[in-house]
Amino acid sequence: MNSVPERVSDDIGGLDAEALKPFPNSRKRYAFGRAADIKVPMREITQTQTVTSSGTEQNPSITLYDTSGPYSDPRITIDIRRGLSALRREWILERNDSEALTKPSSAAGPRFDAADGGFAPRLPPRRAKPGAAVTQMHYAKRGIITPEMEFVAIRENLCLQKIQDLRPGMLHRGTRFGAEIPEVLTPEFVRAEIARGRAIIPANINHTELEPMIIGRNFLVKINANIGTSAVSSGVNEEINKMVWATRWGADTVMDLSTGKHIHETREWIIRNCPVPVGTVPIYQALEKVDGKAEDLTWEIYRDTLIEQAEQGVDYFTIHAGVLLGYIPLTARRVTGIVSRGGSIMAKWCLAHHQENFLYQRFEEICEIMRAYDVAFSLGDGLRPGSIADANDEAQFAELKTLGEITRTAWNHDVQVMIEGPGHIPMQLIRENMERELQECHEAPFYTLGPLTTDIAPGYDHITSAIGAAMIGWYGTAMLCYVTPKEHLGLPDKNDVKEGIIAYKIAAHAADLAKGHPAAQLRDNALSKARFEFRWEDQFNLALDPERARAFHDQTLPKEGHKLAHFCSMCGPQFCSMKITQDVRAYAREHGIQDLSRALEAGLQTKAEEFKEQGGDLYRPV
Amino acid sequence: MNSVPERVSDDIGGLDAEALKPFPNSRKRYAFGRAADIKVPMREITQTQTVTSSGTEQNPSITLYDTSGPYSDPRITIDIRRGLSALRREWILERNDSEALTKPSSAAGPRFDAADGGFAPRLPPRRAKPGAAVTQMHYAKRGIITPEMEFVAIRENLCLQKIQDLRPGMLHRGTRFGAEIPEVLTPEFVRAEIARGRAIIPANINHTELEPMIIGRNFLVKINANIGTSAVSSGVNEEINKMVWATRWGADTVMDLSTGKHIHETREWIIRNCPVPVGTVPIYQALEKVDGKAEDLTWEIYRDTLIEQAEQGVDYFTIHAGVLLGYIPLTARRVTGIVSRGGSIMAKWCLAHHQENFLYQRFEEICEIMRAYDVAFSLGDGLRPGSIADANDEAQFAELKTLGEITRTAWNHDVQVMIEGPGHIPMQLIRENMERELQECHEAPFYTLGPLTTDIAPGYDHITSAIGAAMIGWYGTAMLCYVTPKEHLGLPDKNDVKEGIIAYKIAAHAADLAKGHPAAQLRDNALSKARFEFRWEDQFNLALDPERARAFHDQTLPKEGHKLAHFCSMCGPQFCSMKITQDVRAYAREHGIQDLSRALEAGLQTKAEEFKEQGGDLYRPV
Repeated sequence: MNSVPERVSDDIGGLDAEALKPFPNSRKRYAFGRAADIKVPMREITQTQTVTSSGTEQNPSITLYDTSGPYSDPRITIDIRRGLSALRREWILERNDSEALTKPSSAAGPRFDAADGGFAPRLPPRRAKPGAAVTQMHYAKRGIITPEMEFVAIRENLCLQKIQDLRPGMLHRGTRFGAEIPEVLTPEFVRAEIARGRAIIPANINHTELEPMIIGRNFLVKINANIGTSAVSSGVNEEINKMVWATRWGADTVMDLSTGKHIHETREWIIRNCPVPVGTVPIYQALEKVDGKAEDLTWEIYRDTLIEQAEQGVDYFTIHAGVLLGYIPLTARRVTGIVSRGGSIMAKWCLAHHQENFLYQRFEEICEIMRAYDVAFSLGDGLRPGSIADANDEAQFAELKTLGEITRTAWNHDVQVMIEGPGHIPMQLIRENMERELQECHEAPFYTLGPLTTDIAPGYDHITSAIGAAMIGWYGTAMLCYVTPKEHLGLPDKNDVKEGIIAYKIAAHAADLAKGHPAAQLRDNALSKARFEFRWEDQFNLALDPERARAFHDQTLPKEGHKLAHFCSMCGPQFCSMKITQDVRAYAREHGIQDLSRALEAGLQTKAEEFKEQGGDLYRPV
Repeated sequence: MNSVPERVSDDIGGLDAEALKPFPNSRKRYAFGRAADIKVPMREITQTQTVTSSGTEQNPSITLYDTSGPYSDPRITIDIRRGLSALRREWILERNDSEALTKPSSAAGPRFDAADGGFAPRLPPRRAKPGAAVTQMHYAKRGIITPEMEFVAIRENLCLQKIQDLRPGMLHRGTRFGAEIPEVLTPEFVRAEIARGRAIIPANINHTELEPMIIGRNFLVKINANIGTSAVSSGVNEEINKMVWATRWGADTVMDLSTGKHIHETREWIIRNCPVPVGTVPIYQALEKVDGKAEDLTWEIYRDTLIEQAEQGVDYFTIHAGVLLGYIPLTARRVTGIVSRGGSIMAKWCLAHHQENFLYQRFEEICEIMRAYDVAFSLGDGLRPGSIADANDEAQFAELKTLGEITRTAWNHDVQVMIEGPGHIPMQLIRENMERELQECHEAPFYTLGPLTTDIAPGYDHITSAIGAAMIGWYGTAMLCYVTPKEHLGLPDKNDVKEGIIAYKIAAHAADLAKGHPAAQLRDNALSKARFEFRWEDQFNLALDPERARAFHDQTLPKEGHKLAHFCSMCGPQFCSMKITQDVRAYAREHGIQDLSRALEAGLQTKAEEFKEQGGDLYRPV
């Protein structure tokens, strides 16, 4: 474990100081549920005043959904060797439907202990009592509102409470494609959505460190960031730092896609320190156990891997149970064949054995495992298109149909499900993906990788895919898996992770705006107003990336005085339209609005009369 | 003129060597029209062979639309002090409808001559003979196919000629929203589109250095890059370099938005060296002539500025003739007022004088000027929304209606027109912009700035806007004005220009793909195939940015041998799905495809039977 530092400082425990730097003018706050241990985090950004000739105007603070966990709370001491505090522990114990395993059933490979510099879990893993189900869907179907459900209701509602700050007429009507976003999100709404399978709270009972979040198309659009080592790159400490870094910038979940050595240990470090749900693709570790030979995989090895990871606390598993033997020939004439790692592994296994995919054959047994820990399915799209040419083909939609079939099976076991989607899709074919998914998979949440809208820009696939992600998020996709600039070229480093996340926060937010989510527009309006009023500091602070906004501004106008200037270097003082508009407004004020009206009344070859006739007064109707 | 080097080397004349670096495996080629002086440039990328166990396969070379002008032709000596060669000169002389001005009517401020290090034009400016019109629209309406029209037909067709390289089934049907893209673009089609105002060829008779291009929704989607000095930043030499740099990466037109000092000279240097159309906003220079006081602007100063710039060879003018006095109060309650520089200047003028916008009042006179040089209108959207909150409001659409009205006036004078569009628009409101524009402005080409789909990401507005640009390009916008990462924060530098252009090439290409433009998918398919076959060099070379693709790959796998490796650092060798798929295909080959069929026939709990029953054979139908 050379990659984890031998000595960990008390305050930042091996983490890059950069990842713990507070955001400017922001403070960590909490909202509380009925019980005091439902403590929902948020980030509050304070704004400066607007100064006008007629006095000052307060600008309200802006509350943001906060994925960064305890790392952004200066009152909490972080020690990655101890992990985060187990905030969900009492909730799980109170349900009294699970039991601690005195001897973990894990069939993991060689493990580290604390003495080796490894991570020693403090709590024994738990599992459902025999016959019990411990899933959020199980509780929801029985009408039980769990603390997790209350937590996410408060969390999604945080910004809604400020909706009255919107000036009348400052909220656009959205186009929702059948999504139903209530004015106020109640815990009961959350429960009902989970009960009918339209949303999930990925929350393994062994991931007690988790701050619950919800994935469903009637909630804010979420994003996932992939991290993880590969055989040729990256170490454990780097991955923990990527995880903290990813949640700082807004990752709602992370997937640990580690391959190569130390898969189990990397995951343990990540989960114990991770405030957001952690997903994995268990076939990767299973394959390592058979030295990379797909044909040597067995159900038993795979099953043990599922249990091992479920005991660690993985919140959702990507399982490629829809890659059926009969579908593989449908990929034969594709330009890019099978591009899902898990999909191609299963295809190889099926062909080598002339047998049906054992994940499909054993699906009910898998459900039993998922149900005993509340691991959610992320049903993998092993046959997703890997190029524009292959988009929306038979192989892809055949698999989707099968995913819909086994979704029903999972729901019969009270196991939560989301459906993975593509991939590489030109814009005109994106909507069909969403529509088919809703129909074939009975409205289970859709979780797509992009999609990339062209293949010609390797090095910029965060952009090619942010276009598709924004659109499919608008159409109804619940979670967007990020793509970094390194996609197709190499393993992303920390900077790539940030670039990917920001691009996807943009896509998710643009989708929320387009759906007319009442919480989404508040931040836009606040930033727009700050921009118009030359409150540069507020504009920076409200940005997705305050550091970059400030740095870009300061490249040409570095002096502090320029932060008060009524222009920037783009146009200079003479040509700043915002400044001129302010002058115009000041002029109108000084000369009295009557002058303007008189000008209109005079007719002056304008279209003003026409507007007045249409009942328009001088101001925007509310 | 300190910013222009005193001594210019013979070969690259003050240009950054980086901007002249040849693209890898690419060569400059030309296609010829009926006359030998119609010499249409293209870039041809050669691919390597595919090596399989059964032998090698040739991969066709890929032809790209090439905006880079003579700078990318190693056979041409560049000297920015001499300017590019006057390729259109003979075409213009042959028409015999213009005359050289012995004494330019220009009312420019102080000018440089060559002795001062300034640019000395070699040719006297020309103007239409009295009463004549020299516009492409004039010729088109009379059934004349000009060399410019033939040039653009060949240019747009270049890639179409390779359409037979598409394997059957490898071309998706597009969704065109009423656009009509023919299988083969003829000069007659170009003429007809220009005659009815649905497309323009911006080509001032004084910009003889221009390689003609066309803007219209039945052609490839184009992009514009803004360059230009501001009072607080950048010099002439830097701007020339930005122009060359911009066209290298794919800018179809550039707008010189210089303000501050040396506007005339900066523009002269740019036009004389610019192979793509140059647009300007003449009010900027007019405002400089009155020391920045909008209220001191007069029609005479503005008119002289138009003539001065028309004589220099500006190809299109942004003119904010739709900002009517009566519309200004409609912006009073906006979050961000008026954000167009030209729009705010005119608003200020209107209010100060209590008079109607003189650009509207004098519109017919302006048409007469445009017609005498073939300067195209880019009717400015001075009241475009500057924030999500202000999108699609009354002010915006009132102005659009007026732009439609004056479009008819311009067409009556045979002057070409395009319409500028927003701005800041959430996704669900984008399509209405396109539909209204087509309706109100009689299908004149739409030219939009983005639109940005959210305001919360300053520093990343190339991405927030590429999302909107791709969508509106798909819906029918003919040209997309780029937005750089510095938008709202400062003047873009060379790197920002590149980032903005690549983001917009992605948007434009994604739009072409979505419209089902037959030429667009060729490049995607070639790159996808190269990727699948681990032809790393070809993947890099076919990319929008070969340098970055290569650099990103090499960050983790720098050795030359890795360019032949069947994996990258993202997944490593064991987990590369593309490699596994190739193994699967090899396996199927070795064991005979019959084995697969037998597996299917056995039923094996699969859905295979179902597929066979549906008439599906094992392969993708063509």
